[in-house]
Order: sequence, then C-alpha cells, then structure tokens
Amino acid sequence: MREVVIIGVGCTNFGEMWDRSFRDIFVEAGLSALEDASIHGEEIDALYVGNMSAGKFIDQEHIGSLIADYAGLASLHVPSVRVEAACASGGLALSQGVLAVASGYHDIVVAAGVEKMTDVGTGVAIDALASAADREWEVLMGATFPGLYAMIARLHMHKYGTTREQLAMVAVKNHLNATMNPKAQYRKEISLGEVMNSTLIADPLRLFDCSPITDGAAAVVLAPAEIARKHTDAPVYVKASAHATDTISLHDRRDITTLDATVHAAKKAYEMASIEPKDVDLAEVHDCFTIAEICAIEDLGFVPKGKGGPATEEGMTALDGKIPVNPSGGLKACGHPVGATGIKQAVEIVLQLRGEAGKRQVGGAEVGLTHNVGGTGGTAVVHILSINR
Amino acid sequence: MREVVIIGVGCTNFGEMWDRSFRDIFVEAGLSALEDASIHGEEIDALYVGNMSAGKFIDQEHIGSLIADYAGLASLHVPSVRVEAACASGGLALSQGVLAVASGYHDIVVAAGVEKMTDVGTGVAIDALASAADREWEVLMGATFPGLYAMIARLHMHKYGTTREQLAMVAVKNHLNATMNPKAQYRKEISLGEVMNSTLIADPLRLFDCSPITDGAAAVVLAPAEIARKHTDAPVYVKASAHATDTISLHDRRDITTLDATVHAAKKAYEMASIEPKDVDLAEVHDCFTIAEICAIEDLGFVPKGKGGPATEEGMTALDGKIPVNPSGGLKACGHPVGATGIKQAVEIVLQLRGEAGKRQVGGAEVGLTHNVGGTGGTAVVHILSINR
Repeated sequence: MREVVIIGVGCTNFGEMWDRSFRDIFVEAGLSALEDASIHGEEIDALYVGNMSAGKFIDQEHIGSLIADYAGLASLHVPSVRVEAACASGGLALSQGVLAVASGYHDIVVAAGVEKMTDVGTGVAIDALASAADREWEVLMGATFPGLYAMIARLHMHKYGTTREQLAMVAVKNHLNATMNPKAQYRKEISLGEVMNSTLIADPLRLFDCSPITDGAAAVVLAPAEIARKHTDAPVYVKASAHATDTISLHDRRDITTLDATVHAAKKAYEMASIEPKDVDLAEVHDCFTIAEICAIEDLGFVPKGKGGPATEEGMTALDGKIPVNPSGGLKACGHPVGATGIKQAVEIVLQLRGEAGKRQVGGAEVGLTHNVGGTGGTAVVHILSINR
Repeated sequence: MREVVIIGVGCTNFGEMWDRSFRDIFVEAGLSALEDASIHGEEIDALYVGNMSAGKFIDQEHIGSLIADYAGLASLHVPSVRVEAACASGGLALSQGVLAVASGYHDIVVAAGVEKMTDVGTGVAIDALASAADREWEVLMGATFPGLYAMIARLHMHKYGTTREQLAMVAVKNHLNATMNPKAQYRKEISLGEVMNSTLIADPLRLFDCSPITDGAAAVVLAPAEIARKHTDAPVYVKASAHATDTISLHDRRDITTLDATVHAAKKAYEMASIEPKDVDLAEVHDCFTIAEICAIEDLGFVPKGKGGPATEEGMTALDGKIPVNPSGGLKACGHPVGATGIKQAVEIVLQLRGEAGKRQVGGAEVGLTHNVGGTGGTAVVHILSINR
C-alpha cells in the first residue's frame, strides 16, 4: 500500500444558506481544496463524495454524476463515486478515497462531503435523518434520534454516574471553540445554565445538547506521498483509515453505552498507525449529541469507560486540555451537514496540524484523529492524520 | 494489482414481491451467493452494496449498516459500503468491490445490489427514478425518463434511419430470452405487433419499449485468484472494471445519440483486458428502453455508430447471433430493480461462462461483458469477465 497524503483542504461556511444550492456549495468547497493543493481539475483521477440523503433533502440522486458535472469534470469522464453511511457518509468517502490512492488505482483523488438540509421543512428533515435509524424497529415505534441518544444518556448516567451538568459542559466547550472558528454555524458562547434550562427535547437531552440542521460542504485532495511533494510543503499523512459496522438498531447491542463500531474502528486505526490513544494530540469526534462526545472519548480510549463525564468536567478535552476535542466546535456548534461532517473533521485536523487554525490553534499538535458515526453507531469511521511520515 | 475472481453468484427472482421486504430479498441473494461460493459469513472481509434510492422507496438510508446487520455480520463489525449511481449503482458496487480486492485491501468481498421499488405507489416510484436525471434542469421542466430517452430515439431515427420496428425488435428479442430465464419478471413472448400497438408513453417509445418497476437483489462473491482456487473449480476472472461519468443532463452533451460515458468506460475496459469488441462472446447491456440497447451495442463497439438498428433486425444480437445481447432478458424483460441490475448482469454472465444458463445458454462463451448505465448516461460502468486467466 502506498502512503497517502492530504495535499489540500477546503470548506464552506456552515449554517443555513438560503441563497445557495447543493451544487453551489459543493463547487465552492471543491475549488477551495484544489486551490489549497495548487492543482487543476484536469489532474483529478477520481472523485468520492459522501452524501446521506440528497434524495430526501433536494429530490436528487445520481450524486456522483451531478458532482462531476458541476465540478467541470464530466467532459473528462472522471469516475465519481457517491457513498452513503448516514451521518458517517463523509468519513466513508474519505476512507474509500484513501483506499483508491493507497492501492495505486488512482493518484489524485478528491474526497468530499456535502449536504443541503434546509431546503425542506424541519419535519421532512427530521424524517430524513430518522432514515439513518432502523425504520421498521425503531422509527415506526416512535423513536427519534434525540430519543435514541437520550436512552444512551440515561443508561450512561445510571451505570457511571455521569451528571446532567457534565453533558452540558460538552456543549459549553464546543460553543466556546466555535467562537474562534469563522466557518462555524453558532459562533457564540453559551453558559451551563443556558444549556440546563433550554427546551427539553428527549429527557435528559435538551435543545443545546443537540447538533443543528446545517448546510455545508467540505473537500480534501489526496495524493500518494511521492506526488504530494510537488504540491505541498506541509504534507499531512493519513496514517490510518478504519471503518466498522454494528447493528443498525440500539436494542440489538450488547451495551448501548458503548459504540462497538467505534471501539473496533479505533482499535484497527491504532494498529495501522502503530500508536496508542495517548499519542493522539487532538481529535474531532462525532458529538451529534453531548452524550455522544462522552461515549466517543471513552470508546476511542482517551479515558477509561465511564470516565468521559468527569474528564470533560476537569477540562481534559478543552482547547488547552490534555487532549483537545472538537476544536472546530464539533457537530454541536460548528454545525452538522450530515454528509459533509466527516470531511470537515479532516479539514479541521489538517488546519490544526499545519498550524493554520487561527485563534483555536492547538499548540504543537502532530497527530490528530477524526471519528465519524452513522446513526447511533451502525457505522463508525476513524482516521489518524499526522505531520510525521 | 491482484487478479480478481468471481467465486459465487446469487440472485432472487425479479418481479413484484408484495410479501417480501428489502431486507428479505437482500439476505436471500447474499446467502445464495455464499452457498454458491462455499464460504461462510465469517470469511467475509467487506461488503459493497449498490442501491439507488432506498430513501425514497422504503424510507431507509444507512444501507451499509442495515445490510451488514441483516446479513448477520454486524456482530463481526464487517465494513459495509453503500454506493449510489442511480441505475448504475450495482455496477458501481461491483467496481468498488473489485478495487478493494485487486488492491490487496480485502480478500473476500461481497458485491451486491438491491432495490425494493413496489412498496410505494407508481407516482412516487417514477419521481424517485426521475431523481437520476437533473432535477433542476430536466425534471422540473417536465421531462421524465421515457421522455428523455424518446428524444434520444427521435434523433437516432433522424440521423441514422433507425426504424420504429427495429426498436420493437429489441423488446421482442429480450422477451423471448426471458421466457428461458426462470428468474425473469416477464416470462412471456411478445410479438412485433404487440410492441408497435402498445400504449404510447413518450413518442416514439411505447409501453413495451420500457423496462418495468421491479423488486430484486443480486450478489457476487469476489476473491483474489490465489484464494479463489480453494473455493471454486469454475473461476470467472474480472479482466476489466471501468467507470466513467458524463454530464447528468442531456442538453449538455455533444451528441445525445452517443453515451460518451459508455464509450470511455468501454475503451478503458478493452485496454485493461487487452481485447477488442470483436473478442466479446456475449453481453448484458443496459436496455432501460429499447433505444438504449441500440445505442449501447454501438457505443460498446459491437457495431459501427448508427448500425444498431439494422444489426438488431438482422439477428446479430439474438441468442444464436454473432454476439448475443441480454440473454437474461435484460432490464426490459428480466426486470430492472435499479440498484440490483448491475450485479444481476454479472450474475448472468458468470452463469453463461460456467455453462449453467439452462435453456438460454450461449454455446462456447468464454468472454462476457456487462454494461450498466446511470440516468441517461451520466454514469457508465463496464466489466469484462472471462473464464481465461
């Protein structure tokens, strides 16, 4: 397998973009990544695009062709592959793009993610998102995503003594980080009290425990190491790319407070990169709900099982903590355009590793991890990026 | 790159399956392929599944996880990737599965396709299918798929003198072939007169020029050549796997009677396999409409441009012709469960090359080709399979 390098990254602003289309935002992210990589469209050998549900959000399938077309690459007949794994679609696009380059099949590959969620009403959007869960055994019984994660939170609180305040502290931290990210959807601080008193969604989760509905797109340009040198003086190496599944519905899991897909993908990723969790300097993890970040830092091995709440309370995951988590603001405050999220996580880690993250820069970071989840953990994708070969 | 072998195939009946679910039919096809390959689920390293629009047809996304779960592989955390390229989703799943094995990333990979289309009303189904075309520039202007292919047919008739009867002969041939395929949706002959007098859909296309709405699933098991020997005495080698895009909408094409994505994918495939079109013994091509088969046999190089109509009339593509096309009955008569079609084409070629195609067996076939198209040609995927290493 060849070493794979990220030679360019691009990302749109995240938020409600009423004046821009799916096509517009994809092209913006893609062009921005190409410019960052100093390459032209005709050098691209293949496209991989993560998208969860353009069918439901904008009535459009055949996303690979659409994307190639609007990127101006259809006349070159560039192969373009859309992959879908619900909210892990972006991470999956990255993993498939990495496979295509590592294998020697393709040299220059753009891995992108895009979702335009605000063109439909909130009810339609929520129903589209519910299609990431088990429609027959969960959704038709009345479960929504906040409801499913609320059950995870309830059991986590019961088993490990995780407190309602500790959940809120995830949101407070990620909102603070987002104030330093000019592309974030919510660039404003919130207080512990504001989270604790926000509207109840699914007990114990409140409004500010939940990630928002977001429009956005992100892209990275991948190349094998030998070609990468021509394009960048700041290569970021993909040291590991791992993907695992689990049952789509919660009730079939051995323990709903542990996402086994995350545990398995992380284990594989650490083996591929020959590192341990303690070697990770910072991480972008899948905080679709505050409880999800607490489970993630446990399942990724940053803290022992059950200690995610106290670790958050003690500031371990803050920007100046031992392992900063979600410096971008995470899904919670940077926003969660579902198909784009996994790629945005990689964009953030690359900016951090290059020292280009502005006010939210984590000092001296050399190794970063991305963690992207589909549904309640039916899919998990973990990447480890490093400035060291 | 390693040589890739198809060691097992499986396919459900194609048709309207009111009593069976998406999950049921996927599992049936998968188990059938595993049985054919004499392997157990725990030997599978990865799943690739082609599906166009479960979001719209059954309100379900996150198909990779769902499939792994219902295949009993979620507890093993097997990576499972859903790919989408409209009606070429199956072909794309095969090409990505081949890449995964050829590269050495995975050994045993199941590439599958599945679509359950009859659980929604015909209007919803037609709208879902329309999402393969350009929603903003074609569909919102009133174009349907029969309408788009009707324009292709009109220009083909105008430029090359293709006759209405020649279009009908494609349907007559494929229905005849389907009478010999126990899994086909329509196992009955139709006459030239019945096609010519069937309900007008989009002039010049009539009801019997159009492929139907179908439920179905298909799967193939892939392995590298060195492992394949342990599993089968009748290996079928994947000699080429090629994928190309084009503009999603017809109006941006240089010539709507030629699918450039097919031309480019075929050219690449012939190069990979080091063969010429004349070396192909039989083919399964994308006859979503009768005109599509005529374009396909031209664009694949079996006949010169414009000669697809006369070649069909002369019987060149009949089961006993120079190059039998769509021995399964094609999309037209075997049926067209959109995400499954590309895999079913490979299943048919494998059965033919192994000499297991029953009454529709093509004698002495050694090299077969599959051709799967998304939309009106925004995507094309071509595979060349052979019993010769």
